[in-house]
Amino acid sequence: MRTFKIILAYDGTDYVGWQRQANGISVQALIEDALRALDGGDVTVAGAGRTDAGVHALGQVASFTIARELSPDALRRAINARLPHAIRVLSAEEAPAGFHPRFGARRKTYRYRLWNGDVLSPFERAYAWHVPGPLDVEAMGAAARLLEGRHDFAAFQATASDVATTVREIVASNISTTNDTLDAEEEPSSHKGLNLSVPRVARGGELIVYEVTGSGFLRHMVRIIVGSLVEIGRGRQPVEWMSAVIAARDRAAAGPTAPPQGLFLVGVEYAAALADGS
Amino acid sequence: MRTFKIILAYDGTDYVGWQRQANGISVQALIEDALRALDGGDVTVAGAGRTDAGVHALGQVASFTIARELSPDALRRAINARLPHAIRVLSAEEAPAGFHPRFGARRKTYRYRLWNGDVLSPFERAYAWHVPGPLDVEAMGAAARLLEGRHDFAAFQATASDVATTVREIVASNISTTNDTLDAEEEPSSHKGLNLSVPRVARGGELIVYEVTGSGFLRHMVRIIVGSLVEIGRGRQPVEWMSAVIAARDRAAAGPTAPPQGLFLVGVEYAAALADGS
Repeated sequence: MRTFKIILAYDGTDYVGWQRQANGISVQALIEDALRALDGGDVTVAGAGRTDAGVHALGQVASFTIARELSPDALRRAINARLPHAIRVLSAEEAPAGFHPRFGARRKTYRYRLWNGDVLSPFERAYAWHVPGPLDVEAMGAAARLLEGRHDFAAFQATASDVATTVREIVASNISTTNDTLDAEEEPSSHKGLNLSVPRVARGGELIVYEVTGSGFLRHMVRIIVGSLVEIGRGRQPVEWMSAVIAARDRAAAGPTAPPQGLFLVGVEYAAALADGS
Repeated sequence: MRTFKIILAYDGTDYVGWQRQANGISVQALIEDALRALDGGDVTVAGAGRTDAGVHALGQVASFTIARELSPDALRRAINARLPHAIRVLSAEEAPAGFHPRFGARRKTYRYRLWNGDVLSPFERAYAWHVPGPLDVEAMGAAARLLEGRHDFAAFQATASDVATTVREIVASNISTTNDTLDAEEEPSSHKGLNLSVPRVARGGELIVYEVTGSGFLRHMVRIIVGSLVEIGRGRQPVEWMSAVIAARDRAAAGPTAPPQGLFLVGVEYAAALADGS
């Protein structure tokens, strides 16, 4: 029996989330089904992050143990051949027998994408939260940085969650703006000044990206952080309010939960020995 | 009665194309339905480019005449309220009574996106053609430039097309590479060196973008050009072959038709007087 660690990207739009559920198709179930077909028996797949319905992954990490002898690269191709194109194994490597992608994780990074403009680009509708109207991005950035450090994040947890401790450490929490979207790709310089009938201002808007790296995250934590940052961006709360929300340790003190489609699990970091699979 | 010119973006994945058809839902039909609900009678919408099934638009131009008195901006919002989120009116303006978006067009620009890498990103599956394996991008760029000028493009037309002339002028034809994709967004500098478990090389691949501006385009012309460029990129044909294909004026001489999902109608240019709506 050999244990493998795989890195996955998926478009979560059409799934009930990472975790197997009775009421719909999950990413975990599809991978387990693919492995069952490949290995000839039931295989349990563990994931690093339990992404919710509609949440995406650029670098989810999963592991499983199979009997079949396959090189990591042949395994990657064999799983991909059995998965829908919305889910792709990006890489596979052998891991030590005890490797667990969640318990072994040292840090995780999530990204949340906001579209700030009158009209939401059709190409962003499943990958960003549409927040029209003026947003004070600098205030959002200042508030985001207040989350860095070791805190009790009880205010940023879905109600009715049940975890041993709500203390987590955030090592980086930043807001940035970018035009790196499909419809804002740089035009070749030869086309500059052609007076194309493309109203860049009207359609443009701006992509605002929140990225956070931490030791671990509570259920809905990133989405409640983003909902709170938007309250500040809209001027409904001052920057310092974020510190008051942390101190309150009460879900009712924070902003609303941002919708799932803007959220991406970017990557998971392991201690060097495990990352090497050694 | 007032004539309006609108600029549209749409994700063509779920539609049979721009043009109304008996066998499925078209973008034109959805806009006409929205306008009928708004204006209380049948409205015919004309489009600048007849995009095929699965082809997208960043700046399609359409026009129609309605009785209802609405400001252009109120009209834009009213149409959008009646359309699926995959189709958005980006802007609206009044146009002279005789304005026709196709006959009045001076230049159109199309973009075709190719994904060159082992694993196709799930986020590109509906917006790019997956071309794995080595590609000589410089040769593709040199061949692309051979298309510039006034030529008979009969070789680059879907068979069984029926047009008065197959002569067109291409004013710009360029290949570029970019990392402007959703999963390659620049990470905040604070995250550099965090050793995230995201295999940029394995998942990365490269986005290759072909962009072409011309006086007009034959049916499937851009997709046949791209299919031919990929033959050259794969080393199956030399750069000069592109000139031979043009000279042959025979569809059988060109490469295969690239799939629709990589193609975007970027924008349409009009003579200044019309662009102003004056």
